[in-house]
Amino acid sequence: MLGRTYPKETCSGARALEIVGERWSLLILRNAIFRQMTRFTDFQQALGLAPNVLQSCLELFVEAGLMTQDGREYRLTDAGRDLTSVIVTLTQWGDRWVPHPEGPPIRFEHTGCGGTLSDGMVCSACQHVVEAADVQAVSLDPGQPRPRR
Amino acid sequence: MLGRTYPKETCSGARALEIVGERWSLLILRNAIFRQMTRFTDFQQALGLAPNVLQSCLELFVEAGLMTQDGREYRLTDAGRDLTSVIVTLTQWGDRWVPHPEGPPIRFEHTGCGGTLSDGMVCSACQHVVEAADVQAVSLDPGQPRPRR
Repeated sequence: MLGRTYPKETCSGARALEIVGERWSLLILRNAIFRQMTRFTDFQQALGLAPNVLQSCLELFVEAGLMTQDGREYRLTDAGRDLTSVIVTLTQWGDRWVPHPEGPPIRFEHTGCGGTLSDGMVCSACQHVVEAADVQAVSLDPGQPRPRR
Repeated sequence: MLGRTYPKETCSGARALEIVGERWSLLILRNAIFRQMTRFTDFQQALGLAPNVLQSCLELFVEAGLMTQDGREYRLTDAGRDLTSVIVTLTQWGDRWVPHPEGPPIRFEHTGCGGTLSDGMVCSACQHVVEAADVQAVSLDPGQPRPRR
């Protein structure tokens, strides 16, 4: 499955996009994670997408280990649930830059605590929340030069 | 532009996907953010995608305010650069669940500090890094019930 769609790309982001880069993928996973949906018909009615598109997304999720299938039920695995942070960061970007005229329809809370989640990236060394401008991608291939920023 | 593709969806994640949900979008933005690419031909050669697909992605980015265009140069705006956290979380998910056989090709560093970035979500109230299982989406529409988790 991997390597077909982005043949020139080895980055893990590209590999992730081979699984969740279809137009509807993250919305299906959002409904599974945050609305506890498991049934084909529930996804289909909630999202209003074509059944054949939904079917191929769900089959890919099962094949890639994001969900397990039991009859008409599709249940998240740890790998599928671990996309929570992708969905949160994407949604919070949307809240900032393409906001709904009536304000954000949902917010993400820390269960129990009730605090609002930040999508900030945290530095494992200094523990500071890191701004986008202070992130650099460093090649781990010794043949590649270090990036300029 | 908004509201066409996901007519039943008002969530900001869906609105974000209308802009960056095309198959190649985040890879183009990744190259702009982390490889400082600005020129059409550089994107095209690096990614190997069809010129018409690249053209329509870049036009959408300009229309949506993620980039500005000056001749053949496409430059990130703050909104475009702010997708850094989406790219980091997606790539780190890929590192965990669809790893490259030879290990991750890059890692994300805190510029200056050199620490590795975590894609953990942080609670704005208690400041703890929050696990996926401890995130809930709370509707801000008073007519909607609170979610079960």
